[in-house]
Parts: sequence; C-alpha cells; structure tokens
Amino acid sequence: MHIKKQRLLTPGPTPLYPKALHAMMDADLHHRTQDFRDLYTRVLTDLKEVLGTSHDVLVLVASGTGAMDASVSNCFSPGDRVIVCTAGKFGERWVEIAKAYGLNAVVLEAPYGQAVSPEAVEQALAANPDTKGVFVQASETSTGVAHDVRAMGEAVKKTGAIFVVDAITGIGTMPLDIDGWGIDICIGGSQKAFMIPPGLAFMAISPKAWAFMDTAKLPRYYFSLKKERKMAAGGESAWTPNTALMLALAEALKYIKQLTMAKLVDNAQQLAYATRVACGALGLELFAPDSPGASVTSVKAPKGMDSGVIVKEFKSRFGSIIANGQGSMKGQIFRIAHLGYFDYPDLFAMVAELELILHANGVPVEFGKGVAAVQRLYAERAIAKKETVNA
Amino acid sequence: MHIKKQRLLTPGPTPLYPKALHAMMDADLHHRTQDFRDLYTRVLTDLKEVLGTSHDVLVLVASGTGAMDASVSNCFSPGDRVIVCTAGKFGERWVEIAKAYGLNAVVLEAPYGQAVSPEAVEQALAANPDTKGVFVQASETSTGVAHDVRAMGEAVKKTGAIFVVDAITGIGTMPLDIDGWGIDICIGGSQKAFMIPPGLAFMAISPKAWAFMDTAKLPRYYFSLKKERKMAAGGESAWTPNTALMLALAEALKYIKQLTMAKLVDNAQQLAYATRVACGALGLELFAPDSPGASVTSVKAPKGMDSGVIVKEFKSRFGSIIANGQGSMKGQIFRIAHLGYFDYPDLFAMVAELELILHANGVPVEFGKGVAAVQRLYAERAIAKKETVNA
Repeated sequence: MHIKKQRLLTPGPTPLYPKALHAMMDADLHHRTQDFRDLYTRVLTDLKEVLGTSHDVLVLVASGTGAMDASVSNCFSPGDRVIVCTAGKFGERWVEIAKAYGLNAVVLEAPYGQAVSPEAVEQALAANPDTKGVFVQASETSTGVAHDVRAMGEAVKKTGAIFVVDAITGIGTMPLDIDGWGIDICIGGSQKAFMIPPGLAFMAISPKAWAFMDTAKLPRYYFSLKKERKMAAGGESAWTPNTALMLALAEALKYIKQLTMAKLVDNAQQLAYATRVACGALGLELFAPDSPGASVTSVKAPKGMDSGVIVKEFKSRFGSIIANGQGSMKGQIFRIAHLGYFDYPDLFAMVAELELILHANGVPVEFGKGVAAVQRLYAERAIAKKETVNA
Repeated sequence: MHIKKQRLLTPGPTPLYPKALHAMMDADLHHRTQDFRDLYTRVLTDLKEVLGTSHDVLVLVASGTGAMDASVSNCFSPGDRVIVCTAGKFGERWVEIAKAYGLNAVVLEAPYGQAVSPEAVEQALAANPDTKGVFVQASETSTGVAHDVRAMGEAVKKTGAIFVVDAITGIGTMPLDIDGWGIDICIGGSQKAFMIPPGLAFMAISPKAWAFMDTAKLPRYYFSLKKERKMAAGGESAWTPNTALMLALAEALKYIKQLTMAKLVDNAQQLAYATRVACGALGLELFAPDSPGASVTSVKAPKGMDSGVIVKEFKSRFGSIIANGQGSMKGQIFRIAHLGYFDYPDLFAMVAELELILHANGVPVEFGKGVAAVQRLYAERAIAKKETVNA
C-alpha cells in the first residue's frame, strides 16, 4: 500500500467545505437559547438569499426524502390526482411516495438517460384538469439528466396545481428561479451543493402551496410544515434541531454568499461540460447526451466492460470514490459528480485516473488526452479572458 | 471567483492526515495523568519503531530548529571544534547556531543546488583531529538536495566526533539507518512526513551523544535532554507537552506503521522521480539535477521568468500553495513537495496546473504532456506489476 487519499467524487455526499466541517466543533450548545435562535434565524435568512426566493424557507432534520414525503403529506388528500414525472430512480421515489399516501398518480415516464418533456406535462395537465400537483426532479441524480423545470413551471402555473420540484441535486448546478418559474415547493439537501454532511432537508414553499395545506387531509405529525413555519418565525425549530449541521450550514452559506450562487452553478456547469468533453476525447459514450445536467455526469462503460470494475479501481488504485449506476443501470454506467466543493484540479486528477484505469483494463488510451481537453477549456475561459482584460 | 481549494504542496507544513487532525479534538485532557502517560509512552515507542532505531527518542515542544539548538547546547562546550556542512539556507542555520554558541566551526560549503561530498567531510576530519561534532542536513529543503548521510556517517563513526543530522525533511523521504550509519543525533519535525501541524521536534540520541552531555559546558535549561530522557522513562515530559499534537502524532504514527516507513519513503521517491520526469517533458530545468532528494523538487523558472509569478499563479488560479526559492534563490526557482501525505492524484493535478501556468505566461507547452509522463511511470510500476502478479 502507498498513500491513497480518499476523494469523494460522488453526487452526495459531496466533498465537505473544511470551514463548515470545523464549525461543527461548536455544537456544545442548547437549542432553546437566544444564541441558537440568532444562528437559526441567520441560516434561514441566508438560505432564502442564496436560493433567491421570496417564499418561506424551512429546514427539516431529515434527508431529502423526508422533505419529499412532507411535500405530499402536507399538501394533499387521499385520492388526489397528481402528475409524476419519472426519468430514473429518484422519479420512481416520487411514484412510490404518491402510492404510499394513496394519491391518484398519472406517471410520465422517460427511459433512463432521457428527460420527461415539458410538452408531456402540458398534455397531461390538459388531459387531467383535476390535477392537484406535478412532481419532478430538477436533476435526476441516477442518470445525470436535467429537466426543463422552467418550461414545466410555466405550464403548471396556469393551472390550479402546485409544482413540486426535487431540486436536491439541482440547487447549485442549474439556474433555478423559484418564484419566477412557479416552483411551489423546492426541495434541497445538505449533503449536495451545500458542501456539508447529510442530515438536513430544505424547502422553499410558495403561498399557493401554503394554501393547499388548509384543506389537505393526509395525516402528518413530525413533518408539520405549518408548525415549522410558526416556530421558525421565532427563531426556533419544531423539534430538536441538528445543531452541529446548523453551525456547518451557517459557515457554508457564508461561503456560498461570498462565491455567489451564480458562480457556484457556473462552477458545476464548467466542470460538467469539461468532463463530457474529456470523455469524448477518450472515446467514451455519455449515458445522457441529450439533456445532461451539471450535478453528475453518467458515462457508459466501454463495450464488454462492467462499470463496477471502473468504480472499484478508482478506489483501489487512487482512493477516489465514484458512483456506479443504480438499479438496472448498475454495471452499465459510472457517475462523476460536480456539485458543490469541486474545482479544476479535482477534474485534472480524476481524468488522469480514468485514463490509467481504462489503460489497465486494455482500453486503448493516449495518456493525457482527456486531461489536455480539460486544460484547453480552462485556457479558453480563464487565460484568454485574462489577456482580454489586460489588453 | 470560482471554487479553488487550498492545497498545500509545500515542504512543511505538508498536507495533514485527516484522522490525525481530527484526533486533536480530544485535547481536553491533563498531562499529569495516567491516560496521558499511556499516550506519551505509546507515541515514544511508535516513534522509535518508525524511525527504526534502538537509540533513545525524545519529543520536544519546539520547531525543528529547537532540536538543532538543543543538539548543540547539550553536547558541546564553548570553543569546541565542529565541522558544519552547508548546502543551503538550512546548512547556514547550523553555521549560525554554532556561532551563537561560540563553537569553532570549520564550514564545508557547497554551492546552492549541490551537495557537500562525503570526501570533503573525511578530509576535514583528517585535517581537524580535535573535531567534536559534524553537522549536516540529510535533505536540504531550500534547494532539494540530499546528502550522502550514510557515507558521511561511516567517516564520522571512526572518530571521536558525534554526527548530528538534521533529518527534518529527510525522515520519510530517504532510507535512514540511524544506528547502522552512525547517526548520533537524528532530528525530525512534526509538520513534515509526519503529516501533522508544526510544533513538535523529535530527536534520536545515541549512547555516544549521551556521553558528550556529561562534559558539555554550554548553558541550557528548557532544552535539557537528560531531564527529558529521565521524565520520558516515566511517561511524562519535562515541561507541559503539546497535548493536541501528541494526540495527532499518535494517530499519524498508527498510519505510518500500517503503511510502513519503507513505503512512505518509496511514495515520496516515486512522486519526486515522476515530478523530475514531468519537468523534463515540459522542458524545465532542475535546480539540483545531481543529488536530488525526494522531500522537495526545485525547478528553475523558464528563462526570463520570475519564479514568483509561477508561485503566485498556482495560488490565484488553483488555490495551490507551492514554495518560492529562499534567499538569493527567490525568483529563480520554485519548489514542489513530496514528503508525507501526497499521492499520485495530487501530482496529476499539480502538473496539469503547472502546464496551464506556463502556457498562460507564453511558455510553449503541449497540454497533458507532463501529466502523461507521470501516467506512464505509474503504469510501468503499478499496472505492469499487477499483470505480472496475475500471470
């Protein structure tokens, strides 16, 4: 064994922002104190600013799935008609939640690697005028596909339905105009572009969605969004908050505010684009070439090769953790993340590792070719720009 | 601003081993307790094992320079004849310490970028039969040069002098047979290959050196090695120890024992060699081509270019911290470290960054060429080996 550093290249958990990690050491505190109320209020204010929304923003002690569950149990009644877009494992989770709560779901399914079109949503809404809600992933993490949330939102906006977007890996990897695009519930998670460990879910909730809660009949207790909103107004959470993660989040939000959300998104998009170009240079096929998101890039294993071998060798040779495909995609694709705390040097190293792993498995590779493709993109953006500024 | 992670590529402080960093959180403890005595005893035992010596090993709350100071103040008397080898800024520090304590120093000076030869030491010993001590750097961090400590030790061994080796960046980057080569005092520092923050110095002291202390007349108090040895036998330190760093060191030593010192050295040597080959592929000239060490590689800036520009752009473009030259070498060379917690992906990224920085400053560069040189070396070592094992 030589030195191999563990490097997370996975779409959640993502690499931790060091100052946020260190801030967790201040967690020897009590949550029913003015100090904590100040912290909680600041986090909610910063989160709202970073998400760029005028809607109420809440934090739940839950994984992202908890917020998905809460959006259903708080806003709907048994038998309600909903439209569920599914393009992968996380879309299937919407289907499962709708089923668990007895909703009447029209499922719009895209094959793995493709997106559900806004036109399909528009048509389904027209065919089902009683629709109460439309569910989608902004970014489908299992395939790397991004949905056209803006166009979908425009369609839902005109109806009485609310638009519920799982933006868990969408936030920080794509522009999201929550208010402007009519996103009634926007869901995020701590372990994604927020660069902190798992354990918190975020929800931005529109007035239209709040109104749904007045008549929604589904039972709920822990995930009572109205109670959370009421408590948040006083700087507290309904139940015991995750104080360590709240401290981490405060630090991460400070960093994201300084960086700006636009730059955080651009960072992920540059790295995702460069990854696609590097894969092209290495003769690798993308799994979602038509609507690629910037949270994660899904790449097909070379013909005759199990993608699990690539995943395994990233770890055994270099200590890097990448993701395999999920469900039936397992063994077919591997996934490289870009959301959150990633930079160009991460990508230089990852592509060099990938080249060596392909070579080690008999795939013809010209060493440095993929890296050079990324370097050319960096040079075009960052070096030409500098010379223009100086000229 | 986009995301730029800080990456230390400096020859001390070096990147921290995460588990060692985290262990510092247990520092809410008292040092005159059995718990601490157990910890301290374990650290001294492990340190001895890792250094591969039967000599007494001590830990001082000081930087490496403190141990250099202690080796003089504990073992010599005013006017004692010593031979000081100097091949850079740290050799000059030996000269300064000898002067500060009124020793009578014969200085053997090599130009920056070159090593003092063992023959020069042998001749100086012959010419000065009253010599009490010989001082040298195993690895001269300011230039990247390694000294032939083994051959020097053989020469000193035959005399009445003690051989004092600053191995602060030598430990973990070159084989060091402390007992076999006659190294009477071997000095190390925490922030080097030990992968923890600065604040601790280590000394391995031979029976021959201990005997010197019985007659040494120089005044000393804080750095009383005899007192430290006596206290260490009971699991305590003479003065208040650095408890946080002791916890970190315990964790780092556990890792180094698992890795083995031989592999730690081989790791640095592989990365240093690959760095030299990559620089060659990029047409860069090495500053110390004849006796390069593996702690740090010194590279000349391309003609007409200030090395400070390269240092600055590593930081501003990528967040990477590399070292400039020191003293008169400032502006002429830049230095890339390999000692401690570094791996191949670090090097892939560093070389890709260097290529871009050269390109940004008008130096003709073929993107990926240096990276490919490193990849070829990795493939030769790690991939061919694997196939041989399987065959």
